[in-house]
Amino acid sequence: MADPWQECMDYAVTLARQAGEVVREAIKNEMNVMIKSSPADLVTATDQKIEKMLLSSIKEKYPSHSFIGEESVAAGEKSILTDSPTWIIDPIDGTTNFVHRFPFVAVSIGFTVNKKVSVKGDLERPESGRGQSMVGKWRVCSGTQKLAISKTQQNTIYITKSLLVTEFGSSRAPETVKIVLSNLEKLLCIPIHGIRGVGTAAVNMCLVAAGVADAYYEMGIHCWDMAGAGIIVTEAGGVLMDVTGGPFDLMSRRIIAANSKTLAERIAKEIQVIPLQRDDEE
Amino acid sequence: MADPWQECMDYAVTLARQAGEVVREAIKNEMNVMIKSSPADLVTATDQKIEKMLLSSIKEKYPSHSFIGEESVAAGEKSILTDSPTWIIDPIDGTTNFVHRFPFVAVSIGFTVNKKVSVKGDLERPESGRGQSMVGKWRVCSGTQKLAISKTQQNTIYITKSLLVTEFGSSRAPETVKIVLSNLEKLLCIPIHGIRGVGTAAVNMCLVAAGVADAYYEMGIHCWDMAGAGIIVTEAGGVLMDVTGGPFDLMSRRIIAANSKTLAERIAKEIQVIPLQRDDEE
Ligand SMILES: [Mg+2]
Ligand SMILES: [Mg+2]
Repeated sequence: MADPWQECMDYAVTLARQAGEVVREAIKNEMNVMIKSSPADLVTATDQKIEKMLLSSIKEKYPSHSFIGEESVAAGEKSILTDSPTWIIDPIDGTTNFVHRFPFVAVSIGFTVNKKVSVKGDLERPESGRGQSMVGKWRVCSGTQKLAISKTQQNTIYITKSLLVTEFGSSRAPETVKIVLSNLEKLLCIPIHGIRGVGTAAVNMCLVAAGVADAYYEMGIHCWDMAGAGIIVTEAGGVLMDVTGGPFDLMSRRIIAANSKTLAERIAKEIQVIPLQRDDEE
Repeated sequence: MADPWQECMDYAVTLARQAGEVVREAIKNEMNVMIKSSPADLVTATDQKIEKMLLSSIKEKYPSHSFIGEESVAAGEKSILTDSPTWIIDPIDGTTNFVHRFPFVAVSIGFTVNKKVSVKGDLERPESGRGQSMVGKWRVCSGTQKLAISKTQQNTIYITKSLLVTEFGSSRAPETVKIVLSNLEKLLCIPIHGIRGVGTAAVNMCLVAAGVADAYYEMGIHCWDMAGAGIIVTEAGGVLMDVTGGPFDLMSRRIIAANSKTLAERIAKEIQVIPLQRDDEE
């Protein structure tokens, strides 16, 4: 049976490519950088321009669909996930990188139906596809990356031989930074092979999907940072989990994306949870 | 006047390219990973093979020259820097990345005369060249990167708007990890824009040279991690400094590489020094 959402998915890919071109052009020019929630939470006119461009293209083609976008929410829109087909967009994931031209930026377009993050997938020719209701698409400035199945077999990786990806995050509240660093300390001293971070949730998750990092975790991010790449991880054979070890919740602002349930649970065991307001909290 | 060391420099580039091909081939195959100073300090047969290959090529062509190589030192050779022309080599900088196929690895070839790190440079057509006695060459697995002048003008960057690169390092000694994380905390909370780390000193330093990160600092690395990329930073217009704020010392196992003296000094002010045995300590 044909996937009823295939057309939306193809459209997401087209839009992501167009947006990628805008990023590529903009990165050559001077930028006017503005601050949002903290001195490390940045936005530029390009973030806003790309979000407007994506929103108007989607509204025109699918007037009945819902939309959650980082910059629309920053401008006062609500981010409530419903059963409607919903486009969840981060026009530039990695704005700080973009501002510095640090070469990792993603245009993240997620798509949910019935709030589900599990999906039919055919993202740049993945090796597998399963589930039923979401589309993820990622593209880095330097080119389109084919989705690759994680090469690390499930349940065979020991955490002591793992390479993790995460970020320090954009909060500079001392108590938050303290928990972030204390979690890093606990993980490093297990010991593990190492921790990297390229500055965008979407690209970090794709590094897990590509099998070159074993797991990603972070707290304080948003649904638009996870919706697109989350499905890329699961389609590559990975798992998504909450940092408490419970089921992943797209609106919870936290995630573990790992090559296996075993590794995700092991990470969850070490992590102290940062108190956060949910994306869908009024 | 022609540079008397130009031939060595050209040879270094040729050797780095050959070594890069070996890395590229080896990354496709199974690896046998061995441990050195800590569970996070790894080595593979490829590190050893490339170092042997480079050493024998250099000895054949320049029998009077000296040589300091990461894997030769691991095997018991001394690392004493003399006034002789000296090749300082890290066959794979980023072995943990290499093992995980995390896509950042450098073959680092440095060259000193009279212990000097300042140099004549013509590294993949740099825009500037000055100094007189060292050669640096870097190449990442995904291709050769042209040296780019840092776009951030000297002395105009405020640390609050900076993007830094550093690493957690390979020591898992609790007291060392504590200082590493406490330094990160102090810097993050200044506040600054962010901190990234791609897992190799050489590539991190080249990101500074390329102007996409404002500064790199690290303690616990070795002369072979800094010799090649150090000159790339200075040729790009950046500065090298010790973490105490004093002059950079190639054998000290620590470095700040920044886009300006002002930024380097500001970072030095925040950093607590980790006690380390020098590379040239008997
Ligand atoms: Mg964004
Ligand atoms: Mg090495």
